Amino acid sequence: MSNASKIKVGVVGATGYTGVELLRILVKHPSVTIQAVTSRTEAGLSIATLFPSLRGLFDLKFEDPKTADLTNCDLVFFATPNGTAMQEAPALLKAGVKVIDLAADFRLKDAKIWEKWYKMPHLCADLLKDAVYGLPEINREKIKKASLVANPGCYPTAIQLGFIPLIESGVIDLDDLIADAKSGVSGAGRKAEVNALMAETSDNFKAYNVQGHRHLPEITEGLTNLANQTVHLTFVPHLTPMIRGIHATLYATATKKIDVQAAFEARYKDEPFVDIMPEGSHPETRSVRGSNQCRISIHQPQGSHKIVVLSVIDNLVKGAAGQAVQNMNLMFNFSETSGLDLVPLMP
Amino acid sequence: MSNASKIKVGVVGATGYTGVELLRILVKHPSVTIQAVTSRTEAGLSIATLFPSLRGLFDLKFEDPKTADLTNCDLVFFATPNGTAMQEAPALLKAGVKVIDLAADFRLKDAKIWEKWYKMPHLCADLLKDAVYGLPEINREKIKKASLVANPGCYPTAIQLGFIPLIESGVIDLDDLIADAKSGVSGAGRKAEVNALMAETSDNFKAYNVQGHRHLPEITEGLTNLANQTVHLTFVPHLTPMIRGIHATLYATATKKIDVQAAFEARYKDEPFVDIMPEGSHPETRSVRGSNQCRISIHQPQGSHKIVVLSVIDNLVKGAAGQAVQNMNLMFNFSETSGLDLVPLMP
Amino acid sequence: MSNASKIKVGVVGATGYTGVELLRILVKHPSVTIQAVTSRTEAGLSIATLFPSLRGLFDLKFEDPKTADLTNCDLVFFATPNGTAMQEAPALLKAGVKVIDLAADFRLKDAKIWEKWYKMPHLCADLLKDAVYGLPEINREKIKKASLVANPGCYPTAIQLGFIPLIESGVIDLDDLIADAKSGVSGAGRKAEVNALMAETSDNFKAYNVQGHRHLPEITEGLTNLANQTVHLTFVPHLTPMIRGIHATLYATATKKIDVQAAFEARYKDEPFVDIMPEGSHPETRSVRGSNQCRISIHQPQGSHKIVVLSVIDNLVKGAAGQAVQNMNLMFNFSETSGLDLVPLMP
Amino acid sequence: MSNASKIKVGVVGATGYTGVELLRILVKHPSVTIQAVTSRTEAGLSIATLFPSLRGLFDLKFEDPKTADLTNCDLVFFATPNGTAMQEAPALLKAGVKVIDLAADFRLKDAKIWEKWYKMPHLCADLLKDAVYGLPEINREKIKKASLVANPGCYPTAIQLGFIPLIESGVIDLDDLIADAKSGVSGAGRKAEVNALMAETSDNFKAYNVQGHRHLPEITEGLTNLANQTVHLTFVPHLTPMIRGIHATLYATATKKIDVQAAFEARYKDEPFVDIMPEGSHPETRSVRGSNQCRISIHQPQGSHKIVVLSVIDNLVKGAAGQAVQNMNLMFNFSETSGLDLVPLMP
Repeated sequence: MSNASKIKVGVVGATGYTGVELLRILVKHPSVTIQAVTSRTEAGLSIATLFPSLRGLFDLKFEDPKTADLTNCDLVFFATPNGTAMQEAPALLKAGVKVIDLAADFRLKDAKIWEKWYKMPHLCADLLKDAVYGLPEINREKIKKASLVANPGCYPTAIQLGFIPLIESGVIDLDDLIADAKSGVSGAGRKAEVNALMAETSDNFKAYNVQGHRHLPEITEGLTNLANQTVHLTFVPHLTPMIRGIHATLYATATKKIDVQAAFEARYKDEPFVDIMPEGSHPETRSVRGSNQCRISIHQPQGSHKIVVLSVIDNLVKGAAGQAVQNMNLMFNFSETSGLDLVPLMP
Repeated sequence: MSNASKIKVGVVGATGYTGVELLRILVKHPSVTIQAVTSRTEAGLSIATLFPSLRGLFDLKFEDPKTADLTNCDLVFFATPNGTAMQEAPALLKAGVKVIDLAADFRLKDAKIWEKWYKMPHLCADLLKDAVYGLPEINREKIKKASLVANPGCYPTAIQLGFIPLIESGVIDLDDLIADAKSGVSGAGRKAEVNALMAETSDNFKAYNVQGHRHLPEITEGLTNLANQTVHLTFVPHLTPMIRGIHATLYATATKKIDVQAAFEARYKDEPFVDIMPEGSHPETRSVRGSNQCRISIHQPQGSHKIVVLSVIDNLVKGAAGQAVQNMNLMFNFSETSGLDLVPLMP
Repeated sequence: MSNASKIKVGVVGATGYTGVELLRILVKHPSVTIQAVTSRTEAGLSIATLFPSLRGLFDLKFEDPKTADLTNCDLVFFATPNGTAMQEAPALLKAGVKVIDLAADFRLKDAKIWEKWYKMPHLCADLLKDAVYGLPEINREKIKKASLVANPGCYPTAIQLGFIPLIESGVIDLDDLIADAKSGVSGAGRKAEVNALMAETSDNFKAYNVQGHRHLPEITEGLTNLANQTVHLTFVPHLTPMIRGIHATLYATATKKIDVQAAFEARYKDEPFVDIMPEGSHPETRSVRGSNQCRISIHQPQGSHKIVVLSVIDNLVKGAAGQAVQNMNLMFNFSETSGLDLVPLMP
Repeated sequence: MSNASKIKVGVVGATGYTGVELLRILVKHPSVTIQAVTSRTEAGLSIATLFPSLRGLFDLKFEDPKTADLTNCDLVFFATPNGTAMQEAPALLKAGVKVIDLAADFRLKDAKIWEKWYKMPHLCADLLKDAVYGLPEINREKIKKASLVANPGCYPTAIQLGFIPLIESGVIDLDDLIADAKSGVSGAGRKAEVNALMAETSDNFKAYNVQGHRHLPEITEGLTNLANQTVHLTFVPHLTPMIRGIHATLYATATKKIDVQAAFEARYKDEPFVDIMPEGSHPETRSVRGSNQCRISIHQPQGSHKIVVLSVIDNLVKGAAGQAVQNMNLMFNFSETSGLDLVPLMP
């Protein structure tokens, strides 16, 4: 593809893990030119100096977000902390630039709920109704026409993909869903915090935020929309001593007897990034490391009425940067898998 | 204490992780002399050669189990694979030697169920009724009088300790218990298996044996005895990339409203090795690393009817060797905490 | 490229880490059709069953090496234990099939030295003189014409690339070279061994084979050829608790004063897979994870006469499968970087 | 021992890893009462809240260093950043309180060199001549009489213990010493830094500070004193993905032929905390995890003139808190091993 026909993209806030992962994928995308990469803290620094893994691939420097010419882009990704995109997206959208926010600013429809969980006022609540929740397996057609896409959280991606076929089939008790989820440490971001030190997190396992994690309202909203009735979810996130990966173990009570394996296979048979494993399998997080795949297995232990769904993703790819590129592909009418033929790194 | 008043103990099969952990604890126990340590495969080898961490502490060599004079011991621990203790325990018991089996041979009361799960004939089913299940928090008085103690499995310890106060209080739906448990890799033992290589298990997370793990009947039997009615448990074990530790996340549905925090604190207030953490806590596995503690927190997320119990142990200590020493202390009328004042190693 | 113009390759022994890494790279290579993948132990099994990371990418099954039609291939890779390729390569070569051995069978020129270190008789010593040592940075032109390439070991790749500019410049004392090298655990292969269990290798660091590692004669032969005189190397390998990566720390004593940074940059300026980092840098193994790059920094601490070279590779890529594909590219006149535009996975 | 006869100790700055490790050891020391534990940042917080591993063992809270009555102690440990002890030690010493500084303030004799490396003015340079460098294997008698002990750094401990017998024997070239050292991540301390995040340091290996690490002048001063002539050391520290442990690989050139194994065994035969392993051994860091042992092996690879010493310690124990307690035992005429009978945790 000639450069002329490529789209120009900007990445705001590329010093975190979702940002650098986005760069890893975009640098090989056949239809993209990376126009600008910004960072408040690292402006002026060569990207390859901060991330030597990109040496030889990137000549760009981080630009100051205030001076970077983002309105000249076709698309801007926000790989920023929560609360940033909502400050800058309105002007970009007005200038005709499409926006994908990898943070949480546009994930919930109700600004009040958002403000309760994110503990700050929402600055452009009027945009929430137009923002499309970027889970292609649910919203593919809407994403194609969207100007503003809210890229789903990592836990919400793994968990919703595991519950969708059960909810759509109407075979489970919606009052009693459980998601016991385990995340690698990159989910906490590239931030200087004692809690995320290797000496604190390695050779250790713990739950956190059991009283309420910010991804809970996001998942509940998604599942409630799908079910067309309120669902009740107990969500317990855990930190596991690995770098990448989410493993969601989902529990639901069957209210009817169906072939769940067949239901999952049918639901996802045309999805390029959801892989239903053979019966009896146990997906491993490393089987999707570095790739945009979600792999799922379904069990009914001892033949009981309890359905156990095991769903794994790479939190930085299908749970963040990869899904953002999948959304970009849809928004610009590229092949949905373009730039995403990433073979998992194993071992 | 003079040597004369110490008991003489033997350890059969001390080349695995529970065996060497038993040696680590016993070598400092004030009332114990280690008389014989046996191994089929390493007979003749100095223990400190196989385990350099014990250099300077152990002069003993592994003895051939066929020639070791175990009947001269007061107590013999079996740290062997399943199926070994049942071959040798009857003769020892007949000779007046007490026995603690750290494997599964005497954990179930019903030999048929045992044979179904362990896939071998049971050789001394008549002993099952006399064997005492060595969970002191339930069976303390029976253990004191026992000659044969079945030391509980690691998952069953963490899970039962988390469910006991709920079941005894009669406040949960016994038809719908879930135990989502995560184990470090030492739980798989010191065996040459591709699945347990570091290149296979590190930076990875997976469930396993979801269709049925051998600890399921053990936990179910224990909880059913306690409840005096059949309980239904969904048990999903996972492998997490750390060496030691089990984190059990338990889910139960409250049928009555009680102060669960107070119930747990009351139940365990005199237990030396069960620590109920303050409300809102999240116990970490490393907070018990190397020690015989079980730490537990209880949550009702978002004030719902779902009770979430977080229970952590060191699988090699409270889940194996430490609990075995606790049982020994009870059987020989030593202080229950003798030799078990192990401060967790952190970080 | 149409299938007609692709070469047909076979992979013998693809159940180990170098084998599966080769498949990961070859499956995306534009000029290659994978014709046959063999395994003695897994014949009949679908490759994607053993390696779920390849689900959706591979339809092939492992074939029995006895019945697989390898003579129909243009090229056969041996990703087998030492001693296998030498049994099967002669017949393939005679049939006009090119061979790249990722094991050690053809790495040394002197069969007697080989037999001393590998403790078995060499079965085709006459082929040793024709085999080309596949380090493109030294032997590029010979590799292009070779029928039989001995792919270098992982340590020898990292170490030789770090010493080459110093030896070629004639500025160091050849009697006093030291290579203190650290390898991730995948270097030990996918073999059931207690020593490689995660519970044995994680949270641990040790040297091994200090008295003599099999890669010593390989490195010494390479450096001696280059120097045209005998060099003396002290080589100490260590095991470090990570999956992939080699970090070689090399020590040499300068006999003349030159600008070593400039010498390294000049030597490798046209090499696609050797990256000389800026002065003062410290290359990290993760900066090459999953890629075919070698990154090198050079220091003279405190301005002393001691030169310290830091050289990192991914042992499974530039240290094995990636370098094998680089050699294939040269042997078949493909672009040297074809199929090797692998962006390192970070974090 | 009755409380009356115990000494009263204070710990300043106990929120870091050396501080909490000191508490782990002191809490079981038979001759010590912990009087006060201070922290600027955590004053008022219960110690067991910050470190749940100490629940049930500690009732104390962190006190504000300004108000804590440290002059009432017999001994104060400083587990603070560099530059703190030198502010507070003079007043304590004047009040008759003995001081052990676990940081670097009193490790060098020459204040100018200290100021160059630590980049701040030294506030009590006059105390440097009285401070005793707390390496018992060299300075035991001086430590017994000292009021102010400078506890050695972690690298300096592992490296000096490995070089001492060679230097004292006069059999190596003192112009050409190399220490290639690898440290676990706890060596970087409990500080909020991006570089020490698990996502940055896990599954990764790198050298750092090759141009000059602060421990270099400390080691050089120690070895120079010992040799009674200037020694030249090349010191390359590396970060390895484990929590605890240092592995120093030392290289020296023999100038005479002696039995190095015998020399090491003779030098350390009465040392309670230095273990010379049998010939051909490779000490592992985990063999000393949690203990005050240093284990050493000596090799002459291929019978060459190059001597390779492998020396391992737990950086938080023999490299910090354990050695500090060993020094305390000497200063107060307790048994040198009192409170230090710590069995390594394996696996």
